[in-house]
Amino acid sequence: MTNLINTLQWRYATKKMNPAKAVPQEKVNHILEAIRLTATSSGLQPYEVLVITNPEIREKIKAIGWKQAQITEGSHLLVFAAWDNYTPERINMMFDLTNDERGFKNEGWENYRNMLLANYPQRDAEVNFQHAARQAYIGLGTALIAAAEEQVDCTPMEGFDPAALDEILGLRAKGLRSVVILPLGYREEDKDWLVNLKKVRRPASQFISEIQ
Amino acid sequence: MTNLINTLQWRYATKKMNPAKAVPQEKVNHILEAIRLTATSSGLQPYEVLVITNPEIREKIKAIGWKQAQITEGSHLLVFAAWDNYTPERINMMFDLTNDERGFKNEGWENYRNMLLANYPQRDAEVNFQHAARQAYIGLGTALIAAAEEQVDCTPMEGFDPAALDEILGLRAKGLRSVVILPLGYREEDKDWLVNLKKVRRPASQFISEIQ
Repeated sequence: MTNLINTLQWRYATKKMNPAKAVPQEKVNHILEAIRLTATSSGLQPYEVLVITNPEIREKIKAIGWKQAQITEGSHLLVFAAWDNYTPERINMMFDLTNDERGFKNEGWENYRNMLLANYPQRDAEVNFQHAARQAYIGLGTALIAAAEEQVDCTPMEGFDPAALDEILGLRAKGLRSVVILPLGYREEDKDWLVNLKKVRRPASQFISEIQ
Repeated sequence: MTNLINTLQWRYATKKMNPAKAVPQEKVNHILEAIRLTATSSGLQPYEVLVITNPEIREKIKAIGWKQAQITEGSHLLVFAAWDNYTPERINMMFDLTNDERGFKNEGWENYRNMLLANYPQRDAEVNFQHAARQAYIGLGTALIAAAEEQVDCTPMEGFDPAALDEILGLRAKGLRSVVILPLGYREEDKDWLVNLKKVRRPASQFISEIQ
């Protein structure tokens, strides 16, 4: 048993958070930094993360989020918002940044840029958004581990009205669409029905198969 | 700087793997166990992971995978394959398993089962597959960290023909569709153009925003 396995065993989708206990900003920053470092397809990082502490805004989000209490009982709400499309500007921005940071142009990398420019912007915006949304889920995987490593609880949520959330946060004007949200907080053990129940996963024999 | 941040800094999309160096099975098992423990929407785990060591099959996959050499130079190829649809049988299987493992029925959980049964199977299969595919990407996020924790290299790949891969592995007959693949192996440092280049990510100011 390594550290990561223990970390994954420790976490669970917290159903009741303690509204009196805020997550320290340094722990939130650690989680955000881990997400920022996470891999994405072609390194484009086609999403952003919004960190919402404002109570009124979180009340509005709860109202369009099946009234899930963790949205306001946690201290921070992360919103993963994917690019609504791949544009030449966005692709060039990431390749230019890479060249700037590395201090030189790489021919293979420039060919790869041109291949993306010739393909992505021509595709249907919905196809591009769905692709970008998947990348945000890699970051979600990291966030769940990063939070647990800091013994911070969280509850990944898809149960909300994305169009309404986009409206509340003005996301469409920024070329973004909400994908998944993640309240951060601390479990209130004596009020959480799930906290002591066994974590259930399919046995490896029903989840993994080997082709030798 | 914590352990996880260092782990994320260490990893990169390895471009050249050493075909003479195989990943020990215990390390592969660790990565698979971490994926298995990863959260999914409603706990349905709507995907499976195939572990392919067979050289002939990996040659076939390389041929429909833009000839990316890591597919055969690594020692193990993970294929994340999502459910092609949500069916009552699949939903009931996970809820029944949960009841069995916990030793009792929970009324709220049964109501939740019925809500899913009333909604998911009626949706378009493509919508359900796209939702399932996103869940596999949470597992991919875990896999990247689990591999790096074991100092195993890997290269997440979307560049392959999914329909052709489904055909090679007989996935459609199992109700699965390939989503993303991950060769595991060890970097061959002196032949990898990317190994010593700086990892580039957008600065936090362009990736994260706070609403206070």
